[in-house]
Amino acid sequence: MAKNKYIGKQSIEFGNPPYIISEASIVGKKEGEGPLGPLFDQIIEDPMVGKENWEEAESELMKLTAQKVLSKAGLKNTDIRYLIGGDLLGQLIATSFGIAELNIPVFGVYGACSTMGEAMTIGAILVDGGFADRVMAITSSHFAGAEKQFRFPLDYGNQRPFSASWTVTGSGAVIIAAKSESKKPGEKEIVITGVTSGKIVDYGIKDSMNMGAAMAPAAFETIKQNFEDFNIQPDYYDKIITGDLGYVGRNILLELLKEKDYDISDRHMDCGLEIFDMNTQDTHAGGSGCGCSAVTLTAYIIKQLKQGIWNRVLFVPTGALLSQVSFNEGNTVPGIAHAVMVEAK
Amino acid sequence: MAKNKYIGKQSIEFGNPPYIISEASIVGKKEGEGPLGPLFDQIIEDPMVGKENWEEAESELMKLTAQKVLSKAGLKNTDIRYLIGGDLLGQLIATSFGIAELNIPVFGVYGACSTMGEAMTIGAILVDGGFADRVMAITSSHFAGAEKQFRFPLDYGNQRPFSASWTVTGSGAVIIAAKSESKKPGEKEIVITGVTSGKIVDYGIKDSMNMGAAMAPAAFETIKQNFEDFNIQPDYYDKIITGDLGYVGRNILLELLKEKDYDISDRHMDCGLEIFDMNTQDTHAGGSGCGCSAVTLTAYIIKQLKQGIWNRVLFVPTGALLSQVSFNEGNTVPGIAHAVMVEAK
Repeated sequence: MAKNKYIGKQSIEFGNPPYIISEASIVGKKEGEGPLGPLFDQIIEDPMVGKENWEEAESELMKLTAQKVLSKAGLKNTDIRYLIGGDLLGQLIATSFGIAELNIPVFGVYGACSTMGEAMTIGAILVDGGFADRVMAITSSHFAGAEKQFRFPLDYGNQRPFSASWTVTGSGAVIIAAKSESKKPGEKEIVITGVTSGKIVDYGIKDSMNMGAAMAPAAFETIKQNFEDFNIQPDYYDKIITGDLGYVGRNILLELLKEKDYDISDRHMDCGLEIFDMNTQDTHAGGSGCGCSAVTLTAYIIKQLKQGIWNRVLFVPTGALLSQVSFNEGNTVPGIAHAVMVEAK
Repeated sequence: MAKNKYIGKQSIEFGNPPYIISEASIVGKKEGEGPLGPLFDQIIEDPMVGKENWEEAESELMKLTAQKVLSKAGLKNTDIRYLIGGDLLGQLIATSFGIAELNIPVFGVYGACSTMGEAMTIGAILVDGGFADRVMAITSSHFAGAEKQFRFPLDYGNQRPFSASWTVTGSGAVIIAAKSESKKPGEKEIVITGVTSGKIVDYGIKDSMNMGAAMAPAAFETIKQNFEDFNIQPDYYDKIITGDLGYVGRNILLELLKEKDYDISDRHMDCGLEIFDMNTQDTHAGGSGCGCSAVTLTAYIIKQLKQGIWNRVLFVPTGALLSQVSFNEGNTVPGIAHAVMVEAK
């Protein structure tokens, strides 16, 4: 029998922490104009990415990102054992059509905007367990495709309340590997040391225009469990980074944790609040989407770790598990959050 | 570093083959009237499963199946480390709403009708790698929900060509564990010895009413790769069992394999062809859906293995990666197939 690597109630501590040996991010025009603009690998001005519809645009975005993360590592598709990927579109069509020609065995995954956390978790498990030498974790989202999928087509011109978030047009990818392969002088290596995987948490929120409130309880449960399972306090991390709670969700998360005597307010960061300038970009509660946390991780967070500005972060992509059908049928919006411990070595 | 467990191009050989310690199947009325009827754990006559819409009906079906697979093993929800599950509905809502109250960490997965293969693969990896002691793999589908999702609402009364398949109303679940826990006198134990995970295969089929033809090339690629990676011939297996190719897809698969000098015609079986009586049940090309292979595995295949009638089977759920949107936009229907080696011990 293999040695047990699971600890506490919901966590895994990796015996041979897998390396993140390459990361890539490609975003749309609006994201490129935001505060993280200079950090992305590529900004594509054309929202159609040269294609004929929003879905194909997102597929193309994901394909280009997959190619970029390979080329940055000096690898080719045959060097990757598995691709773990997902997106927000029904039946994951951005992923299916985006990465088909890479010709890599695929695990399609779905955790709404938490998908990057799930993909990295399964990727790290495959590598740490000796099931793969190198895997790719990748997600994407597209503003126009998501609005059409979950709310209204853009042409309808509907008004959005201030609690609504703005789906990021972007795709982020990492290559997770058993060996360090790409250390550069003066840069630290990046490893995944553990994960805390989320349960579905439903506080009864029914407003698809306020997903921060729906996801905050899930982020709370996962972060609290991470502290308990690893027997650590918030100061173990330099940053605790949620996916896309936005202003509304962030405040709920901080309050819920405070009630349990955990104060993370001095080290909490939310990808949705970093990616856009709320004062000038009119994005309401903040950025969201599978791409939001993925591009913030790959463009910004990993760079901070490589440069030694931060040493340990808890990366907690957050997802709202609704569909247009479930929303129209009056159902709640359950949340989920998958935490990944990313550390400089 | 962990010992490498991957072999060939796309396969894993498990060092400590995980056990399937419990399995459950719940189906609808039509499936209960089919040839496998007496084998299912439960048949629910009401297509709404006591709920108000098709989506909630499918969620309920999945919840009941999860409860059944636990109770058959004498386990409770807290005994399960992870639940790996998926369905055909957009954003996996049957799963999200079905298993929320089980309160188990969740990995949502999507591989269309191949989802049970993907879920069992990830489940076996978690257990073999020491990342979990027990996990549940579960999928579901519902005829009416799938028609509404992918084609037309039933009320529309559209005609279906003979190449169309009939989505199975049903949910199947297995518990995969590190130790044998439930061996009964006279019954063999069931283990997962290896997997061959699929790539996305696109032969350019565009007909959503002929998914067998779209999936057959994916099944072909995965089965051929399994033979090559493990250096075995078809006669290694007592049965090679595809998910839901139906009549059309089965013939294509057999032809494609024959071109490579593999003749599996004497041991091939398709879950879609087993579950309904084609002569009396008017299901055209056969059964399909995430539930089709899952309930055939749990009601029929595992029983045959337990009783020693078969000793080794290659279980190959097959998926057609389309959505209503991709179909309406004129896209192809790519296929995927995930093979799981299930053996009696």
